Amino acid sequence: VLIARALDGLPEISAGDDLAALICKVLERQDASSELSDGDALVIAHKVVSKAEGRIRSLSEVSPGARAAELAAKLDKDPRLVEVILGESSEVLRAARGVLICVTPHGFVCANAGVDASNVPGEGQVVLLPVDPDQSARRLRARIRELTGASPAIVITDSFGRAWRNGQSDVAIGCAGIRPLDDWRGRADANGRELRATVIAAADELAAAADLVREKDRSEPAVWIRGADRHVTHEDGPGAAALIRPGTEDLFR
Amino acid sequence: VLIARALDGLPEISAGDDLAALICKVLERQDASSELSDGDALVIAHKVVSKAEGRIRSLSEVSPGARAAELAAKLDKDPRLVEVILGESSEVLRAARGVLICVTPHGFVCANAGVDASNVPGEGQVVLLPVDPDQSARRLRARIRELTGASPAIVITDSFGRAWRNGQSDVAIGCAGIRPLDDWRGRADANGRELRATVIAAADELAAAADLVREKDRSEPAVWIRGADRHVTHEDGPGAAALIRPGTEDLFR
Repeated sequence: VLIARALDGLPEISAGDDLAALICKVLERQDASSELSDGDALVIAHKVVSKAEGRIRSLSEVSPGARAAELAAKLDKDPRLVEVILGESSEVLRAARGVLICVTPHGFVCANAGVDASNVPGEGQVVLLPVDPDQSARRLRARIRELTGASPAIVITDSFGRAWRNGQSDVAIGCAGIRPLDDWRGRADANGRELRATVIAAADELAAAADLVREKDRSEPAVWIRGADRHVTHEDGPGAAALIRPGTEDLFR
Repeated sequence: VLIARALDGLPEISAGDDLAALICKVLERQDASSELSDGDALVIAHKVVSKAEGRIRSLSEVSPGARAAELAAKLDKDPRLVEVILGESSEVLRAARGVLICVTPHGFVCANAGVDASNVPGEGQVVLLPVDPDQSARRLRARIRELTGASPAIVITDSFGRAWRNGQSDVAIGCAGIRPLDDWRGRADANGRELRATVIAAADELAAAADLVREKDRSEPAVWIRGADRHVTHEDGPGAAALIRPGTEDLFR
């Protein structure tokens, strides 16, 4: 059985805040059944991680260059926003239909390089992805262990669009203490036949499950999940970097 | 709070079986807390739906044509399997690295047009996707209502690979009684700012959540989910067809 519960009551996060401590404080206020234990997972929307790490830009302080101005005109976007997006991109794959599909320095392929203006308190401010979301996840995990003695898995998420399918789904952009890919190749199915192509993106499925209980108009960036123990590991593991398909192996660029 | 529980003990499914009745029988044996109610969802791996609908082929009865033979040689696959895959495809987008990425007649983009040889009891048999998975979901829902009086959402799933990301995630290929896309555009975020691009693929996120509790080496194709009420609807709704991005709007073909 899997149980997922959104944590209610996290305050607005600012640069330098001890996010792990604030999450633990919210967890303490929940009922006893959600006391943190080792096999649990905490799924955290990256926005609060980015805010705690100061990954916010004010558009008023941005001077768009020529390429940003040109793309902005083509896509009917704010040239300052496009400048920030280009600064967060190692490559632009598509610029069409009002959307910039970018490769981030981490290797993620996503709209606007993850730069987002929603759920930001200040007018004209945008939130960037964490510089190293796997490192952020490891740091949060270590701090939570320090505060509570428990080592839950940490999954940091963003909402990504998908090729071929409408709508967005939350995916893992950083994680620690979880096997991001559950590799069944070589193991047997229920009929004893070898499973050939089954590698399950468990960290992405946890991100998606957490998004189901989070309400977008409330401040519920953190979701506590119990029952995913078989994906949770003692060591921090390879992180969400393992979920990135190298460009050379990608059939759709 | 979201609760997901895999249903244990569904028998091997054959063509003509009353899948809805078999699922209801398994549900009755679970503890009382999982008694079916209207806001619940049943997430069902398509394989048992396909089997009940007789969507199985024996490779021994397939004669590969010239195109199948050519692709099979290039990809190091069984030419009879490739023939079946081509028969289930309206278009082949990529044929490389041992993989055929196809567009199915439904419009899904997936490896091998969803044709799968795992979890099939007979040697040399493969399972195809249901002909109309949304119709299958509506039929299952109606039959469950008939048997239990409850109208849970039905989500029929398959495991799809993704562009750009390693591993597979379960997605909805058919559904009934659920809003497949949760559209937040025009609504406000926690700071009262309009959410611009937020359309959440709720049916896909339910599929992913269900996969987390299902063990691939046991027979647990059906997962009961409570707590996703806000996505469950009285009417059957548009189905997973709404999740398909039209080829003309797709930047990655």
